[in-house]
Amino acid sequence: MKKEIPYKIYLEENELPKAWMNLRAYMDKKPAPLLNPATLQPMTKEELSQVFCEELVKQELDDTTKMIEIPQEIRDFYKMYRPAPLVRAYCLEKALGTPAHIYYKFEGNNTSGSHKLNSAIAQAYYAQKQGLKGVTTETGAGQWGTALSMACSYFGLDCRVYMVKVSYEQKPFRREVMRTYGANVTPSPSTTTAVGRKILEEFPGTTGSLGCAISEAVEAATSMDGYRYVLGSVLNQVLLHQSVIGLEAKAALDKYDVKPDIIIGCAGGGSNLGGLIAPFMAEKLEGKADYRFIAVEPASCPSLTRGKYAYDYCDTGKVCPLSKMYTLGSGFIPSANHAGGLRYHGMTSTLSELYAQGLMEARAVEQTSVFEAAEYFARVEGILPAPESSHAIRVAIDEAVKCKETGEEKTIVFGLTGTGYFDMVAYEKFHDGKMSDYIPSDEEIGKALAKLPNV
Amino acid sequence: MKKEIPYKIYLEENELPKAWMNLRAYMDKKPAPLLNPATLQPMTKEELSQVFCEELVKQELDDTTKMIEIPQEIRDFYKMYRPAPLVRAYCLEKALGTPAHIYYKFEGNNTSGSHKLNSAIAQAYYAQKQGLKGVTTETGAGQWGTALSMACSYFGLDCRVYMVKVSYEQKPFRREVMRTYGANVTPSPSTTTAVGRKILEEFPGTTGSLGCAISEAVEAATSMDGYRYVLGSVLNQVLLHQSVIGLEAKAALDKYDVKPDIIIGCAGGGSNLGGLIAPFMAEKLEGKADYRFIAVEPASCPSLTRGKYAYDYCDTGKVCPLSKMYTLGSGFIPSANHAGGLRYHGMTSTLSELYAQGLMEARAVEQTSVFEAAEYFARVEGILPAPESSHAIRVAIDEAVKCKETGEEKTIVFGLTGTGYFDMVAYEKFHDGKMSDYIPSDEEIGKALAKLPNV
Repeated sequence: MKKEIPYKIYLEENELPKAWMNLRAYMDKKPAPLLNPATLQPMTKEELSQVFCEELVKQELDDTTKMIEIPQEIRDFYKMYRPAPLVRAYCLEKALGTPAHIYYKFEGNNTSGSHKLNSAIAQAYYAQKQGLKGVTTETGAGQWGTALSMACSYFGLDCRVYMVKVSYEQKPFRREVMRTYGANVTPSPSTTTAVGRKILEEFPGTTGSLGCAISEAVEAATSMDGYRYVLGSVLNQVLLHQSVIGLEAKAALDKYDVKPDIIIGCAGGGSNLGGLIAPFMAEKLEGKADYRFIAVEPASCPSLTRGKYAYDYCDTGKVCPLSKMYTLGSGFIPSANHAGGLRYHGMTSTLSELYAQGLMEARAVEQTSVFEAAEYFARVEGILPAPESSHAIRVAIDEAVKCKETGEEKTIVFGLTGTGYFDMVAYEKFHDGKMSDYIPSDEEIGKALAKLPNV
Repeated sequence: MKKEIPYKIYLEENELPKAWMNLRAYMDKKPAPLLNPATLQPMTKEELSQVFCEELVKQELDDTTKMIEIPQEIRDFYKMYRPAPLVRAYCLEKALGTPAHIYYKFEGNNTSGSHKLNSAIAQAYYAQKQGLKGVTTETGAGQWGTALSMACSYFGLDCRVYMVKVSYEQKPFRREVMRTYGANVTPSPSTTTAVGRKILEEFPGTTGSLGCAISEAVEAATSMDGYRYVLGSVLNQVLLHQSVIGLEAKAALDKYDVKPDIIIGCAGGGSNLGGLIAPFMAEKLEGKADYRFIAVEPASCPSLTRGKYAYDYCDTGKVCPLSKMYTLGSGFIPSANHAGGLRYHGMTSTLSELYAQGLMEARAVEQTSVFEAAEYFARVEGILPAPESSHAIRVAIDEAVKCKETGEEKTIVFGLTGTGYFDMVAYEKFHDGKMSDYIPSDEEIGKALAKLPNV
């Protein structure tokens, strides 16, 4: 007899993952390496170590070790907010009248409000272990900056966040949370870096961009003794740390002998989706089980569904290494959109390669339909979702409705990466009917793709 | 051998309380009854039923039934966000270097952000069961309005919230969360009620007050067919529903054979503290165990520590029944303060009577020291607390530091009622050194107390 499944499955503390899963190690054909923008040769350990912490560089380059131990100090921190619950969406199923079984892994029950903390604490730990004074980073929507502030506060590291100026001004609450954790938050572009000063001179009154904030954070890290730069998505190391999401989700499902049919996640840089699918995709790669995976992206920034699989710059300023990925071109400027965490022109190389191999599907959804799903979900499941996460909710609902039509009792798992408490301006626009959808034209995307580097 | 205590103790779903605890039923000397403001006679069931739902009136007046069953529909809703974790504050203990063992019951892991949802869902359930169309209420800081919106959305009830105008304007995000749940939010005073129009005529440009919002909500409820008024604190029924906090906390402690020495909670109207202490106080009243209880209030609104135990009006407008309670006088206007949930001139009658009998202690703390504790807690425990909850944190830390001095290994439990995501304006003031403390003079309190009704 099957055990009755509770509304929320919590693992016991001693069931928490003791090692991260390195998905690349399960792939026969590996993701392509990062290239040095000057030499177009693969980035070496030495080159990467000038910008990143040593242990993190090791993780970045390791594509053969399947499981990498989570240091005890990080596991102790994880215990403060993990295990995250795997929720059986009984109320959503009932409201939809679907025979599908829906589960979501909820990563929003921590003060940073999202899954970003899983990697932030790991990166802060290695920085402290290396004896560094502090780290620098950029933040757009603010989730990553908040998570890193919390992590640095825990390990006594200085944390310098370059926050895109428009966000700094429009999201003062995010900024205050970071200050509560002792972080130094600077609106970017700023006069504290050469690149910031140059941009301000060229474009006085600019409200900044993520590309510019990255450049400032990298300059700050490399020009100060005892500092390194850290990043919250796209990198291999980040996917590694985020595998804790998928490992917990799978352990919770295994406890009740549940095997998912479809696994869904939103995808910006790919850190959440890469983490969620890791152990399931590993089984698929090993031929042990089959699953459908769906990456959901905004129709306004459709790197997987309309981009090209090619080497491209990771940042607008073209100072970072090149990565082979699905990209819309580093010059592509996504329209203003309330899922700030998904406005990235590329996609982490691992997910790009899996998608290229046909192991994963992708779907692009429009903003208003995402907020319709978000509000519906909030009302029936009682959790106010982040706009990013709501992309996954949209497709999970669509798939559950299909099951209603066909009568299939599929099991759907999706990632609920965070809460929307700091996104109420977006909800307000939605309520007031002022939210718009934007789909870039083929011409617009073609123009940006035409400028891809010739590698 | 004692079991090792995890960072977070979660009850299993089948261990969730099946009945609420009615603390008054354990008291030999009962709290005094509510009085009709016109006749000064105890309010009857019939009188109360004109304003409140029938089943809730029954609960309000019942001071003999010890345990009252939680209807299955409410228990199903509770499963969406309960059990709430009882957290062992290992990191806080370590940071303080105290031999004390500190636990907190965290009620902030739901979208309303506080414990208010525990009673909101019960009140909405009974309203729907009675066949009502909807309910009206007032909200100041916004937690209660948010919780009620979620509850009404779940049961398909119309929800009309009168929000103090200054909060409506300063907390647009709270308002948007309520709108997400389909609530109708009106800034008070408004032109939708006679009392609102009268106040606006008398005081054009007023930013409103809780007293005024209550009057508007009561008028709206009693002038529309199929509506009743609901309230989020002070009432006996609310303490009853909030006992779920204490019952869960005690069950979690019992699992690990832990007996607390000191139990601490913030106290505004008293709903959180009354709920947290219920099963422990019941044991104390029965002579089965002894505990110290500490109610923490703001020094700017010190009803227990500096008020008088007397019959007083529950609202500024003097339209509601009189309650015997510790009060600063219904005309006392607390200074602006960032713990909006604690700015109430009185205290629920049950806690007042327990305090009068010497079964509970009280302590008043100043605002800046509360925010110092809040920030310290956020950094070491990773949860950004609400200003209200931070009053309890302040005293929990103070008691833990005393243990460090004396070497005593006491067990301290406190209630962490909610998160501070919507209170970042207050944190900003604190960071910028712009936060002030205010302690009312004896003269000021004496003036308000001189106007107590002559009962």
